[in-house]
Amino acid sequence: MALAANVATAENGHDLWLRNAPLDSGPRNATAMFATGLVIGSTSPTLDVAVHEVVHAIANMTGKQIPYRNIVKMDGAIVIGTTRSLPMIAKLNLPLASVGKDGYVIRSVRINGYNTTVIAGNTDIGVLYGTYAWIRRVAMRSSLNSLKIVEAPSLQLRILNHWDNIDGTIERGYAGNSIWDWWTLPDVKRQKYVDYARANASIGINGTVLNNVNADAAMLSTEYLNKVAALANTFRPYGIKVYLSVRFSSPMELGGLSTADPLDLAVAKWWQFKAAQIYRKIPDFGGFLVKANSEGQPGPQDYHRTHADGANMLAAALKPHGGIVMWRAFVYARRSKDRVGQAYDEFLSLDGKFSSNVILQVKNGPLDFQPREPFHPLFGAMQNTPLMMEFQITKEYLGFSTHVAYLGTLWQEVLRSDTGLGNKTYTVADRLSRPTSKGITGIAGVANIGTAQDWTGGVFNQANWYAFGRFSWCPNANARNIAREWAALTFNADTRFVDPVVDRIMMPSREFVVDYTGPLGLTHQMNTGHHYGPGPWIGDPAASIASSRYYSKADSGGIGFDRTSNGSKTIEQYRPRARHMYGDKSALDSRYLLWFHHVPWSLKLAGGRTVWDELVFRYDRGVSGVTRMKQVWSGLQPFVDADRFHEVTSYFTVQKREAQWWRDASVAFFQSQSHLPLPAGHAPPTHDIEWYKSIKVSHVPGTE
Amino acid sequence: MALAANVATAENGHDLWLRNAPLDSGPRNATAMFATGLVIGSTSPTLDVAVHEVVHAIANMTGKQIPYRNIVKMDGAIVIGTTRSLPMIAKLNLPLASVGKDGYVIRSVRINGYNTTVIAGNTDIGVLYGTYAWIRRVAMRSSLNSLKIVEAPSLQLRILNHWDNIDGTIERGYAGNSIWDWWTLPDVKRQKYVDYARANASIGINGTVLNNVNADAAMLSTEYLNKVAALANTFRPYGIKVYLSVRFSSPMELGGLSTADPLDLAVAKWWQFKAAQIYRKIPDFGGFLVKANSEGQPGPQDYHRTHADGANMLAAALKPHGGIVMWRAFVYARRSKDRVGQAYDEFLSLDGKFSSNVILQVKNGPLDFQPREPFHPLFGAMQNTPLMMEFQITKEYLGFSTHVAYLGTLWQEVLRSDTGLGNKTYTVADRLSRPTSKGITGIAGVANIGTAQDWTGGVFNQANWYAFGRFSWCPNANARNIAREWAALTFNADTRFVDPVVDRIMMPSREFVVDYTGPLGLTHQMNTGHHYGPGPWIGDPAASIASSRYYSKADSGGIGFDRTSNGSKTIEQYRPRARHMYGDKSALDSRYLLWFHHVPWSLKLAGGRTVWDELVFRYDRGVSGVTRMKQVWSGLQPFVDADRFHEVTSYFTVQKREAQWWRDASVAFFQSQSHLPLPAGHAPPTHDIEWYKSIKVSHVPGTE
Repeated sequence: MALAANVATAENGHDLWLRNAPLDSGPRNATAMFATGLVIGSTSPTLDVAVHEVVHAIANMTGKQIPYRNIVKMDGAIVIGTTRSLPMIAKLNLPLASVGKDGYVIRSVRINGYNTTVIAGNTDIGVLYGTYAWIRRVAMRSSLNSLKIVEAPSLQLRILNHWDNIDGTIERGYAGNSIWDWWTLPDVKRQKYVDYARANASIGINGTVLNNVNADAAMLSTEYLNKVAALANTFRPYGIKVYLSVRFSSPMELGGLSTADPLDLAVAKWWQFKAAQIYRKIPDFGGFLVKANSEGQPGPQDYHRTHADGANMLAAALKPHGGIVMWRAFVYARRSKDRVGQAYDEFLSLDGKFSSNVILQVKNGPLDFQPREPFHPLFGAMQNTPLMMEFQITKEYLGFSTHVAYLGTLWQEVLRSDTGLGNKTYTVADRLSRPTSKGITGIAGVANIGTAQDWTGGVFNQANWYAFGRFSWCPNANARNIAREWAALTFNADTRFVDPVVDRIMMPSREFVVDYTGPLGLTHQMNTGHHYGPGPWIGDPAASIASSRYYSKADSGGIGFDRTSNGSKTIEQYRPRARHMYGDKSALDSRYLLWFHHVPWSLKLAGGRTVWDELVFRYDRGVSGVTRMKQVWSGLQPFVDADRFHEVTSYFTVQKREAQWWRDASVAFFQSQSHLPLPAGHAPPTHDIEWYKSIKVSHVPGTE
Repeated sequence: MALAANVATAENGHDLWLRNAPLDSGPRNATAMFATGLVIGSTSPTLDVAVHEVVHAIANMTGKQIPYRNIVKMDGAIVIGTTRSLPMIAKLNLPLASVGKDGYVIRSVRINGYNTTVIAGNTDIGVLYGTYAWIRRVAMRSSLNSLKIVEAPSLQLRILNHWDNIDGTIERGYAGNSIWDWWTLPDVKRQKYVDYARANASIGINGTVLNNVNADAAMLSTEYLNKVAALANTFRPYGIKVYLSVRFSSPMELGGLSTADPLDLAVAKWWQFKAAQIYRKIPDFGGFLVKANSEGQPGPQDYHRTHADGANMLAAALKPHGGIVMWRAFVYARRSKDRVGQAYDEFLSLDGKFSSNVILQVKNGPLDFQPREPFHPLFGAMQNTPLMMEFQITKEYLGFSTHVAYLGTLWQEVLRSDTGLGNKTYTVADRLSRPTSKGITGIAGVANIGTAQDWTGGVFNQANWYAFGRFSWCPNANARNIAREWAALTFNADTRFVDPVVDRIMMPSREFVVDYTGPLGLTHQMNTGHHYGPGPWIGDPAASIASSRYYSKADSGGIGFDRTSNGSKTIEQYRPRARHMYGDKSALDSRYLLWFHHVPWSLKLAGGRTVWDELVFRYDRGVSGVTRMKQVWSGLQPFVDADRFHEVTSYFTVQKREAQWWRDASVAFFQSQSHLPLPAGHAPPTHDIEWYKSIKVSHVPGTE
């Protein structure tokens, strides 16, 4: 009999990759052998979490309550702690010296003659990270035998950036409103805040910027700082530090000063006072994130000062307390020159001029989180300034919450790009984790988290949060391995599920989005403002205001933005190795072609097709890719609970329709420029171009 | 060892009163005796739900899977269905004739010589209501023996009104944003929509108005109607009909007409066309809710037509399809006369002039959902027009989501008020359920539901949703019994928990809010606009614009609004019995004193205190009541899971602080008018009045 209703115990996505679902008998018995008792020493809030996690994970996965033991007296004990919390750990000669503050060692050892698993770190948080790693192994049915794991993160700062506004909306948020319930804070500490901290700690994230980079000065008011402190207290056991985005002109709005000039003593004093106040409330406060002189935000340039003047003034206020400044390199103002060159132009001359507790936060590409961009030239150019990566987890340009687009491949592509620094390959990941500069290292991801029951407004969006955490721990991680972990933990570890969902859905998914929104290095062809849907006809190729046509430069003569030395010259912002790679259009990977070159429609590409034919081919490849993902998913029903299965299916329906819309509108527009016939076997757009132009949408999410 | 973290299986409130938590062994064994097998006949989507609910409830509560049987062949079978779905039910001579379309019979019978429980209705939805009733008995550990239950609802329409805006915000919503994810509808049918329908069906609610009465014309666009249809499809098996609030001027905004005059033929035709379109998509669409000529909304008076002209034109468009019009009697425009008299003035002359498929929706009191108002005089005045009640479940004036205020007592007070109609007591509940008018009966509640994980932004707010449903089924229900049901189902059926939580927290809670916000019949003393916090100093007693001072009329001579024949005369809108009760200030219940009378501060009340002393006494009684509720709650920790226990505790912290704020600010202001000393034993306000006046709040939720 078909049952229409659904039970409360159904999967609603809230548990993310931490479901710790019951194991089948084989792995259950195997796990039980390695979880006969738990030996712990002195406790702390963080060690309490670690112990609690093991106890509950084992209970959920095996149905058994793991007993506490004082000593190891049978095979299968788990020993958890630091050398301070549990002195017996010091006797095991573990390679703890190599794992630093946040790392851990998981090792199969013999204690008192019994087979034992030890999870150890130099700090409580290291122990907690190790604990999550061990639980992950259990949940993935990996072997628990002969473990010899030594792990440490490559980056110090592993941070989520929330673009959450003080009124609860989220800029570029597609999963509901902000999970910070400012109204009831600081009194009400919701369990959701704990769940949030736990999810982040489980993947190595150690910081969160609570509010939008387009910041409200009120965030620094005493009233709001008390609310922030309550969140910080909740997050602390999970090793999550709190940071705030600050509005550069806060001394005026909040302090009543007549200027925010960073060289004005009263301004500096105001910030010092404010920093001291913050640290009284939050002793381990992380620091500030600043968007200045970009998209209308105030900044030091308002007073003819440099970014360094501004950043260093804030850094001086935070320094006595151990805080840092993350200063964004994303600067954007109207200008006649190639818009993607602005950050380099403004920041290169400041290399080496920032205080030691400042780090520049640089977006992965020079434009703005497009489905594909070349890496940002500042990663190759600035050698004497700490640089951190800014990725966007929320899918502003990759189909919002409703398209499946696994971003692990995008990030891997960027992280593995050769910056051109030095004599041999030196990737963006190297620049982040083994920097030429001294000091802080880090990575940030713009969060995709909201009040949606599953946090991210669609289960596959959880994969991007997960992948961000895993890459933040190890920028050289492998996107496919991460996808496999996530799929196994989130749905089902059965390889008949994991193989197809990873290799036929997740791994190619981002490339399909590139194909149906901007193939061949085309970029920023979406509608303005809300960034939803295609708008390749918008703007004017010659205008100084960035728009679709400004970026495509499509006309009857050809397509693409000439950034070579014949054009805007921004290619010269790259180091020679990268410059040569991008500059030689005959050798260039066609994925970047139209980013750097303006080419005639008839140009033959390496594969044998003309640019025009290849463009149409790729748009169609994107659409058929979505159709194929949907088909693959439909075959996976036996492995997935009904609720999540049907939700994903319905998302694919949306994605398929919108991919077709993108393809049809784009082909219609570019054909109006190329005046060329469609290649054989490729259908004309369903409607004429005027029809696509006439589409109006309203109430688009994430538009503030 | 103290454990800091919390498990995913903890109670997060999402399951509401439908937790069906595992029973202790005693009731578990008792239940098992009455659930040995399930006999069902032919199925339907609604009957599928009923069967599914029994199976899962029994599984959750007893751990046993109840088997399906074709025939009754042992004691303890449950037989579920209608006489059509299961012919054996027809042979049982159940009193189904008396329960109508929505009612049910639950009876212990002998079938084939075996003890059997039958759950039967005339319709599938009746069966489902009976099923929820039986499951509720199990969860409450009530006896399952010798059942002889015959139930039918007293009202036809039992409807939630969502004040959800098309952009996702909720007017007067304090539990996050709208649960309708318009962006992903109609493609994505979230499980939450099913959970919503299920929760409502379980308490007898059978309709939902999806959007705010301050309506956006776009809601009637084809695009949105497709989204509405998807929700209607999801709700249908649960017996929940969908209704829409409509903007009266939609023919102009959406149809391009130059007028919305209800007597214009093109306008009428537009609505007929629109209704036909709706019913093609949603064959069982419920109808329209209309707010017209109130607070700036367009309406028939814009064209010098009456409310009846407007309502009847819409009703004519819906009539061929079986739809109805709910026309709101809440009209508010600036006027020099007593604002609370407006609805009576505008509607009384229209009595009997509305079409048969129109029902007037009247708020419980003549002002606006205050913590206490006398009942609305229209319930006594209009005898020839169907009237439905409008309650407000969301706590716009009762502390938002963070104060505990059980509204069952408020609604019971209104429903049991004697309208004065006829020769003997004829209550508001009678007027609703045994009306003098012919035709439709109903009740509406303004929902308190949002994206909060627990739906209502605090577990005690769930009680008001629950109570609304139970009162909608039976307006003569008992608020205390409903509270006992809710507390047992939501937390714990142990009487050591239920007795104190009901009698010492829920039942007195609303009176405490009255005490600390507006005792003795004072009303509307809150801050303007957002309605948060005290603002008794706002406005001018003589002004025509409604404000705190307009309502209190407090000055050195006394306090209270004279609505007697010496004053605004609105007391004359009541029938003689009610008019006499309210009019005689020496005999009047002091709860209504200042609503109807302006009295000197020195007037002695029945209890012996002067008005001034009693006012201060009651403000303090409200504050100490909150302190007491908090104390009682703290003793209930053993009976409540940690997450919900701590959340409620933190809510009481908020409520205590805000009750004190209300009391202090109010006493400070009224003392500035009375110039009288505080009675002995009552502390002066912590700050002077200017301090309270200077408080500014921002980002107040629910303010659109």
